[in-house]
Amino acid sequence: MSDQTSPAPCRARVFSASERQALYDIIAHRRDVRNEFLPDPIAPEVLTRILRAAHAAPSVGLSQPWNFILIRDAARRAAVKRAFLKANDEARALFPEDRQSQYAALKLEGIEKAPLNICVTCDRSRGGKVVLGRTHNPDMDRYSTVCAVQNLWLAARAEGIGVGWVSIFNEADLRPILRLPDHIAIVAYLCLGHVDDLFDRPELAARGWASVADLDAMVMEEVWQPQ
Amino acid sequence: MSDQTSPAPCRARVFSASERQALYDIIAHRRDVRNEFLPDPIAPEVLTRILRAAHAAPSVGLSQPWNFILIRDAARRAAVKRAFLKANDEARALFPEDRQSQYAALKLEGIEKAPLNICVTCDRSRGGKVVLGRTHNPDMDRYSTVCAVQNLWLAARAEGIGVGWVSIFNEADLRPILRLPDHIAIVAYLCLGHVDDLFDRPELAARGWASVADLDAMVMEEVWQPQ
Repeated sequence: MSDQTSPAPCRARVFSASERQALYDIIAHRRDVRNEFLPDPIAPEVLTRILRAAHAAPSVGLSQPWNFILIRDAARRAAVKRAFLKANDEARALFPEDRQSQYAALKLEGIEKAPLNICVTCDRSRGGKVVLGRTHNPDMDRYSTVCAVQNLWLAARAEGIGVGWVSIFNEADLRPILRLPDHIAIVAYLCLGHVDDLFDRPELAARGWASVADLDAMVMEEVWQPQ
Repeated sequence: MSDQTSPAPCRARVFSASERQALYDIIAHRRDVRNEFLPDPIAPEVLTRILRAAHAAPSVGLSQPWNFILIRDAARRAAVKRAFLKANDEARALFPEDRQSQYAALKLEGIEKAPLNICVTCDRSRGGKVVLGRTHNPDMDRYSTVCAVQNLWLAARAEGIGVGWVSIFNEADLRPILRLPDHIAIVAYLCLGHVDDLFDRPELAARGWASVADLDAMVMEEVWQPQ
């Protein structure tokens, strides 16, 4: 009975004001978590819901280029932590001298404290040589993967699970730990764990490292407005 | 009274089962929209809520590298459409011959049908020469911008607004139309408009172009598993 050549849209679900508000509250209360992780394991059914949300992300040409590598092994997380520490030393030295001590005082990862790490990867070969929508922007697959990360992050927050994105690595140090073949790119290395407490605003703002900009300054009409 | 040097986290908000479900439903019902846009304008307060959600995205070093260029002008959208048509001709020719007619039959953008286009850009210079968290992965600013896109997309869906991401452009054709300076990268070109109807699954799946993968195939334990 189905006619693959002329599928049709149907009445779209309408969300209520309280459903919309739930989304806005989850978005507003999401944090990049470094230190508030509790040791309790994440229940399998909770993790499945979170990963299902990630997997429902948009992807270029429906290529679904992501994978989720679940890392719990203590020795493996210790190896990842060493890779972070090495890169973080390099990173600190890049800042102006007057910011180096402030930088050093920031906790920037929860690799070993969080009971679960997830490496979100992007298979650069998935979907074949020519992927619809990726013909003129080869990075679209990595962008799709980031969409999955953001879905994961919001779902985790709604479940009472904190997420921290660790980006201070030399990729060459991380790849052998996770045995990644050449066509697999690391997009995000995430730490996950239950949280009871969170900062009430971005931690880097609370600690005086940076401040939250006004939305108005971010919005422009028709063309780029010189700032 | 405030002590900037030792701010502390506080009790995290706990979300109810119905709030979690609202998020999951919004995620599951989000679509990449090409043809279902209605001409009705988006009310300013709705657009503000959507952009506020985008602006609440995580960003590397709290650099908030995004801007949102709102494009409504018909002549400008026509120019963008011409850039798409040129690139889409090039794209079609890249596919194997047996897919070219199927490709040509797909509607891949709603640039002129949607009443609002938003170009989401990334300021590669924002936050200064050294940005916390970006020292070892210079793409983290673009990833932050994609997180903002995904927040925007979900917020729009909750508001009954469809979003379509158009990626088939030569960037060089689009930049002068939007008067972008060199340090501003295009991350996403989005079409937005109210929708009454949507596909009940990804349109490319409904049209037989690609199929939705099982989540199980995407999840691995500890290290990459050869597939």
